[in-house]
Amino acid sequence: MGFKGRELRSTVVNDRLRLTIEDVQIDDPADDEIVVRIEAAPINPSDIGLLLGPADVGSLESVDDGLSFRIAESRLASVAGRAGQSMPVGNEGAGTVVAAGSAAASLVGKRVGMIGGAMYADYRRIRAADVIPLPDDATSAEGAAMFVNPLTALGFVETARSEGHRAIVHTAAASSLGQMLQKICLADGIALVNIVRSETQAEMLHNIGAKYVLDSRDNYFSQRLADAVEETGATIAFDAIGGGTLGSEIMQAMERASVRRMPEYSRYGSAVFKQLYIYGALDTSPTILNRLAFGFQWSVSGWLLFPFLQKAGPEVAGRLRARVLAELKTTFASSYTRIISLTEALDPAVLRTYERKATGEKFLIDPSRG
Amino acid sequence: MGFKGRELRSTVVNDRLRLTIEDVQIDDPADDEIVVRIEAAPINPSDIGLLLGPADVGSLESVDDGLSFRIAESRLASVAGRAGQSMPVGNEGAGTVVAAGSAAASLVGKRVGMIGGAMYADYRRIRAADVIPLPDDATSAEGAAMFVNPLTALGFVETARSEGHRAIVHTAAASSLGQMLQKICLADGIALVNIVRSETQAEMLHNIGAKYVLDSRDNYFSQRLADAVEETGATIAFDAIGGGTLGSEIMQAMERASVRRMPEYSRYGSAVFKQLYIYGALDTSPTILNRLAFGFQWSVSGWLLFPFLQKAGPEVAGRLRARVLAELKTTFASSYTRIISLTEALDPAVLRTYERKATGEKFLIDPSRG
Repeated sequence: MGFKGRELRSTVVNDRLRLTIEDVQIDDPADDEIVVRIEAAPINPSDIGLLLGPADVGSLESVDDGLSFRIAESRLASVAGRAGQSMPVGNEGAGTVVAAGSAAASLVGKRVGMIGGAMYADYRRIRAADVIPLPDDATSAEGAAMFVNPLTALGFVETARSEGHRAIVHTAAASSLGQMLQKICLADGIALVNIVRSETQAEMLHNIGAKYVLDSRDNYFSQRLADAVEETGATIAFDAIGGGTLGSEIMQAMERASVRRMPEYSRYGSAVFKQLYIYGALDTSPTILNRLAFGFQWSVSGWLLFPFLQKAGPEVAGRLRARVLAELKTTFASSYTRIISLTEALDPAVLRTYERKATGEKFLIDPSRG
Repeated sequence: MGFKGRELRSTVVNDRLRLTIEDVQIDDPADDEIVVRIEAAPINPSDIGLLLGPADVGSLESVDDGLSFRIAESRLASVAGRAGQSMPVGNEGAGTVVAAGSAAASLVGKRVGMIGGAMYADYRRIRAADVIPLPDDATSAEGAAMFVNPLTALGFVETARSEGHRAIVHTAAASSLGQMLQKICLADGIALVNIVRSETQAEMLHNIGAKYVLDSRDNYFSQRLADAVEETGATIAFDAIGGGTLGSEIMQAMERASVRRMPEYSRYGSAVFKQLYIYGALDTSPTILNRLAFGFQWSVSGWLLFPFLQKAGPEVAGRLRARVLAELKTTFASSYTRIISLTEALDPAVLRTYERKATGEKFLIDPSRG
């Protein structure tokens, strides 16, 4: 009984990372479980982190059963914890329920969206409580990415509000996530300062109604950032880049705007609290903080979806999920530049394309294509 | 009427910082005020920040009415806010009440400790509510430093406790502040990992009962730090240095200890929250965070005494002040290597000595000496 299917796996052995597609047996669901035939699973930047880890993509080699990469010695320590483990990949996805335990029988035949890992696979056995049935008019592709990006974007706004900030700065802002964030901020009346790295990206954001879009490659970037931060009163930033000095420059702009409003000099800087959250690692180099330029009222912290949801509690999480479902085809619509099969995910040319994480490019895996 | 006295002043004009001793007129106290003849005021690192700012001490020149220093062009922006203002110096001090308004008459003749700036002076007019009468057997020297270091050390422990940490890491730990912190932690049963930069400093801390003292110049420092952090379970650090990678190394040691206790691998690192507070700037270079080595559950923040006290509220502040008073001659005793007059504070040789902020050296100004 059960189902036979395939699962994409990533394994670190010694100084190599191997990607393979394994045949697996899916057990019958328990009473409160279902089995979903996966029809759509997005490739998010966070998936690539587990898929390829610190592997050197330039060292790609096709081997008998998949692909193999070298890991630089300096990065080996960072994956010591997963050595030898065959790890399934794919945070979120959607598909059709093909089997269900007695307590979940009504779900059979329905399309559901879900998060929980191991989505780059033909089938996923999962607790019924952990999926969200899609509206009848929504395709699996439309429901495949209803967790990571939408909840992160909503989580940013929720975090900003609950910590008393009234405007937000966002880097790498033309991403799918960034576009959702802009739409939410427009709807909720929160000023958003978008930082991008090209004219095309700036245009993309302007087209969806963005008021503040700054190109960090612009000669007058520092000045424009200072002006935008002063005009909006932004005191919180979410940074996908992490490495280098951009986060520090944002904090400095916030401090400068606050100091301009101070009635008298203090050598400790302004009394206005500035918060930088780092939620990504597009630049893996160290974070450089020129902290003397932003006083003592500041914090730089990691931001991650699951700890946020846990801290926010079930009520907030439920409210955010309901909004995602209600705005699935508008605010939270993802558009994909390419739909690939599970096999194609390990095609060297295809992998090199999605691994670049170029803004505007977004891949969806549909295992039913083979 | 009133009092005639002297005040030490620091003034930035264009690209120069000037230190002078000015004759000033102290007005008679209002009903709720007193006038204190200052007999002792410590030179804390935080005082030197206002006194000399970013001035280049090597450029010291004696001029007619005091001393003059050059400020490097790159640092001018950091003092733009105080340009042209003659700023009094000296955060805290103690002395004898020589005049009082009608509502504070009972204080005349008493010795008091106080904080509020402008203490490098012959007299200080101040609200009676802002001073603390000293015990009869305490000298002004003993009551001169009862605010900045004692409340900061107590504030660290209070912060650690209220944020749920059970052990603390402290850098530049052999300072007056560091010794107080060690004594508090011993009394309160909190493990403290002290990081110092010499054998002499290590010995000083061992002599007051410190269990964990690490020399950052030691070849095995990283390993010893990891061991001490693992053994104590420290997840919060207070860092006086600020620049460079030491803070990052501490966070990394905390993460490594947490990961060792994890049942399974997560590419986001451990779920244990790690906090680094930067409260000083012994190294003014940028803070370098190798954040990929410590996951996403972390925060690096500025820590400053007054915002802490404000946030903690009057009840906590009162409790901490009462403890300082009760342990003035034990836990919170400061020892001074040299007592100087107000005039000597501007003696070039003397200034060069206290400006070095060498650990173990501590200066006290007694304006009654001239």
